[in-house]
Amino acid sequence: MFPVQGKSGLIISSKEAVRKMGINYFNRDDRDLKFVLFEQLDLSKILSYEAYRDFSEEDFGMIIDEALKVCRDVLGPANQDGDREGCLYQDGDVKVPASFHDCWRVMAENGWIGASSNPEFGGQGLPSVVGGIVGELFSGANMAFETYPGLAVGNGRLIEHFGTEEDKALFVEKMYTGVWGGTMCLTEPDAGSDVGWLRTKATPDPDAGDPRVYKIEGTKRFITCGDHDLTENIIHLVLARIEGAPRGTKGISLFIVPKIRVNPDGSLGEPNDVFCGNIEHKMGIHGSPTCTLNFGENGKCRGILLGEPQSGMAKMFQMMNEARMGCGVQALGIAASAYDAVRQYAKERVQGPPFTNRDSDRVPIIQHEDVRRMLMNLKAGTEAMRAVIGRLFYQIDVAFNDPDEATREAAGLEVELLTPMVKAYFSDFGYELVRDAIQVMGGVGYCSEFPVEQYARDIKIVSIWEGTNYIQALDLVGRKLGMKGGSVFQNWIQEIMAFTSDHKEDQDYARDFKLLYKAAQATADFALRFMTYFKEGKARLIPLSAVHFLNCFAETLMAYQMLRQGLIAREKLAGVAPDSSDGFFYRGKIETVKFFCRNIVPNVFGRHTILEQEDTSAVDIPEQAF
Amino acid sequence: MFPVQGKSGLIISSKEAVRKMGINYFNRDDRDLKFVLFEQLDLSKILSYEAYRDFSEEDFGMIIDEALKVCRDVLGPANQDGDREGCLYQDGDVKVPASFHDCWRVMAENGWIGASSNPEFGGQGLPSVVGGIVGELFSGANMAFETYPGLAVGNGRLIEHFGTEEDKALFVEKMYTGVWGGTMCLTEPDAGSDVGWLRTKATPDPDAGDPRVYKIEGTKRFITCGDHDLTENIIHLVLARIEGAPRGTKGISLFIVPKIRVNPDGSLGEPNDVFCGNIEHKMGIHGSPTCTLNFGENGKCRGILLGEPQSGMAKMFQMMNEARMGCGVQALGIAASAYDAVRQYAKERVQGPPFTNRDSDRVPIIQHEDVRRMLMNLKAGTEAMRAVIGRLFYQIDVAFNDPDEATREAAGLEVELLTPMVKAYFSDFGYELVRDAIQVMGGVGYCSEFPVEQYARDIKIVSIWEGTNYIQALDLVGRKLGMKGGSVFQNWIQEIMAFTSDHKEDQDYARDFKLLYKAAQATADFALRFMTYFKEGKARLIPLSAVHFLNCFAETLMAYQMLRQGLIAREKLAGVAPDSSDGFFYRGKIETVKFFCRNIVPNVFGRHTILEQEDTSAVDIPEQAF
Repeated sequence: MFPVQGKSGLIISSKEAVRKMGINYFNRDDRDLKFVLFEQLDLSKILSYEAYRDFSEEDFGMIIDEALKVCRDVLGPANQDGDREGCLYQDGDVKVPASFHDCWRVMAENGWIGASSNPEFGGQGLPSVVGGIVGELFSGANMAFETYPGLAVGNGRLIEHFGTEEDKALFVEKMYTGVWGGTMCLTEPDAGSDVGWLRTKATPDPDAGDPRVYKIEGTKRFITCGDHDLTENIIHLVLARIEGAPRGTKGISLFIVPKIRVNPDGSLGEPNDVFCGNIEHKMGIHGSPTCTLNFGENGKCRGILLGEPQSGMAKMFQMMNEARMGCGVQALGIAASAYDAVRQYAKERVQGPPFTNRDSDRVPIIQHEDVRRMLMNLKAGTEAMRAVIGRLFYQIDVAFNDPDEATREAAGLEVELLTPMVKAYFSDFGYELVRDAIQVMGGVGYCSEFPVEQYARDIKIVSIWEGTNYIQALDLVGRKLGMKGGSVFQNWIQEIMAFTSDHKEDQDYARDFKLLYKAAQATADFALRFMTYFKEGKARLIPLSAVHFLNCFAETLMAYQMLRQGLIAREKLAGVAPDSSDGFFYRGKIETVKFFCRNIVPNVFGRHTILEQEDTSAVDIPEQAF
Repeated sequence: MFPVQGKSGLIISSKEAVRKMGINYFNRDDRDLKFVLFEQLDLSKILSYEAYRDFSEEDFGMIIDEALKVCRDVLGPANQDGDREGCLYQDGDVKVPASFHDCWRVMAENGWIGASSNPEFGGQGLPSVVGGIVGELFSGANMAFETYPGLAVGNGRLIEHFGTEEDKALFVEKMYTGVWGGTMCLTEPDAGSDVGWLRTKATPDPDAGDPRVYKIEGTKRFITCGDHDLTENIIHLVLARIEGAPRGTKGISLFIVPKIRVNPDGSLGEPNDVFCGNIEHKMGIHGSPTCTLNFGENGKCRGILLGEPQSGMAKMFQMMNEARMGCGVQALGIAASAYDAVRQYAKERVQGPPFTNRDSDRVPIIQHEDVRRMLMNLKAGTEAMRAVIGRLFYQIDVAFNDPDEATREAAGLEVELLTPMVKAYFSDFGYELVRDAIQVMGGVGYCSEFPVEQYARDIKIVSIWEGTNYIQALDLVGRKLGMKGGSVFQNWIQEIMAFTSDHKEDQDYARDFKLLYKAAQATADFALRFMTYFKEGKARLIPLSAVHFLNCFAETLMAYQMLRQGLIAREKLAGVAPDSSDGFFYRGKIETVKFFCRNIVPNVFGRHTILEQEDTSAVDIPEQAF
């Protein structure tokens, strides 16, 4: 099992930690992570579940410490390397940055790849809520690298859920333990957001002697980690249409397509006619190859049908939903690393006096009011994201493990409601926060010697992949708002209303509860309008404002979680010395909660005014005017 | 004189236009540029001025056409090259990307470098308003390249204004005509935004036989175009403290420090002990070297005092103010090029059906409502910026040329009021708009084969250089709001109030005038509060909200200019066929004005709510909590 249970431990020589080129800036302060895990969330509930009974809070603390160590010693030092060196495409093969090989080895040997995966297949069986926090750390230390294990595990989970016993035995453990990599093959040169139009085809392969084996033929594009030299094999999960299947997403099936064929005994067979045609040159995540994959150019590519024919999209959606939550974790991870980098810098960099004391000597720029404002954007923004991520992953554990069916269902619905928001809002917000981080550093922030410009380039992809942010907004408005006749969303609004009503006279946060109340009202009004738009033939207002709605929903939700944290912090503060380390943390949390409510939540009201205009100029304008 | 006046013409062989590596994406539609110049602004006034009497509207039209040609054929094709190749530092010398040499030659030979400069010194004497538009094109085609001529001209202008007859004769024409380059040397490793703390020192050089000649010693950092091989010489303008001068900005003097000394007859003398120590690796503008310059390491660096001792900051500010307006032009140029790239892409890229017609066939994504929304952000955003830039540069011409002193003064004050806003808002807004451009393209937008990810990297610097955006906000709040006892700002607000009052019942724009009215009210309220904050000892609220105020001011101003345009467009539309090219343009403009008012202006109200909180959490929080 895990290092805390004495398996292999994390033995990382100092040699491994010294990299050729890059500087290691990873420096996460874990206090807020532990606050979320141990103070905000009720872990006793999770620990009471059958699957997690062998863990203790202490285990989780040690796991986080170990994860931090891996980030500091292994992943972090490889982050700038990976960006500078990038991936190399040569004669059909992709080479990853040199330092990534050590990263992979350490992650695999210590069980980090399948940290939250099923122990039956070599996973470590951690609760999702711990996995989410560890994921923030790994993504924050080296987002490009984290794509490789992330895809291997996501892939393995899909085979675990939908594969036959044989599939499971052949593939899953190898993917959870870092022996093989994995990919999701959806996009094609002519089918992106409209994946239903894909052209990759599958035809029965009578030579294979197994009716589940098909010949695969087609080209996939933008395949993350589509080829690399980290593992001896890569298991592609490929969406394709079986000849004769209906058009659109309904006719799509899912296939397991190994790069190297796998013999029934698990050994590697012949190459499977899958070739990488090229890799993209990109804005960021240079260490993660984005590949064009050609399947069956020589008519010899075999894929194993996963589950029933024509159920491919539904299956892929399970993976995609996990990946979407993962996007939120990535955005948080990067933004939090940007915050770490600049809070450190702001404490050290001395420049002129602050605005309110022009005659003073020079001071560290953290004493400059506007720098403080930007640092608070980063602090409040990342802490609010983390509060939501904590809640989301906690609810995943509840949804899968709670003995009470109604509790499981409610948790599952909450997860569904929050997923598109976490993916879309966090990625856009994270991009903005990294912009602020660059601004805190000034000219230095623009230079590649320092980490934040890379963060800006790396994080940008998150708003695009796993379904663009607009697709998330449509998912929220079109599917999630209406779940259970709208009651899931309504309950959520009512919960906030009750919460604000309980605390409207709060001595510290009265103003903040009022802002949250108004934000929830505005968000609810948005949702109501969407329903009337459908009825009143104003449907085109929906896609024009769905993104605004998602953003309002997100800020309301984050404020809600932040105020919960604020109440906890106040209570805890009463029990510690104000100038102790914990005292500073809780005092900081209280101010951070106020900052979030007073400086970020008001954006909701601006957007609500936009909504009130019911403006259709964007679709009224003639196309020729563009 | 200019090509239009038959001097050399623009002879660009097709060979020059074909570059080794990059793709040329420059594709500016000039209709809106010409709308601003010929329909929004009253050019007859400009043409009536002595300095511009030899020009005609036709000349300006031809100049824009020629500038577009240079962008399409020369600067644009070198933009990706420059990004990929970057600058090379080797043994103290900097080599620019190969294709930049042709760019420089074409720009110099055809008089583009000193397009708006004084003809007495080889400039083309164009009005600023035309120069601004040409600047948008050049920056939009190749921002990295445009830094070289931009600095040469800004530098030359400073020497023209403050130099002796000898200085002018020696330097200015060579800088306006592309023989020599130029730099601004302010920043030092330990003095950035607080330039008053610089350490570079100047001591009288008795050996020089000229009391204006000093020995210069010190290190400057982040010097754009600090060294390069485009020109035989580079004239640095260096801020330094003469020994014994007071601390702070008041004790700083300005020196002309050529890379190669210049003999009294204008020929080149010996090297001047100025060496480039290294160049930065940066997020963007790879084709523009950001240098560390060492002056006088061997005690042999000579600088000529420009103007009086200890007047250096005031002089540098003239250049800086021009550079700040230039920042607005750069941001507009890049954002407009991003818009051009994606409007084209959106018309060609076919994907699934739009939201409001799910059963239709696939359509070009420009028919997708959310893509339209993002395109409208880009269209409305860039057109609003352009409207303001047009007005700003027009007022520069008025300020320098109008025969009536009061008119000149009023125009000059308006320029002062608008400059910080144009620098700061446009750079942040431009960054956001480019983000939208990436999003329109999806995965393709993240790939370097396409131009928009480079735009995101290039434009980011604009928020930092020439004084960070926060410094702009302080300039606006601390200096500009109070000009003439506050009357400049108040008059501006009253002008908008009168405008909205005149049109509040407008048949098309009533809603938009109301939004503008409310936005102006909110902005005025902001300004009033700032005054009470000073009086009431709440001064720390000022630096916490100055950036918000600047943003509100900017959006109000842009909406004002857009509504002016909207009224013009409606009038013009009545005179053309609605389905003619002009008809589409005017119809598009009307919708674009509405879009701006209804989708961007409401942000003002969100920010005003932030202001109302008078939140001080960012400064109340203990530093230890970060």
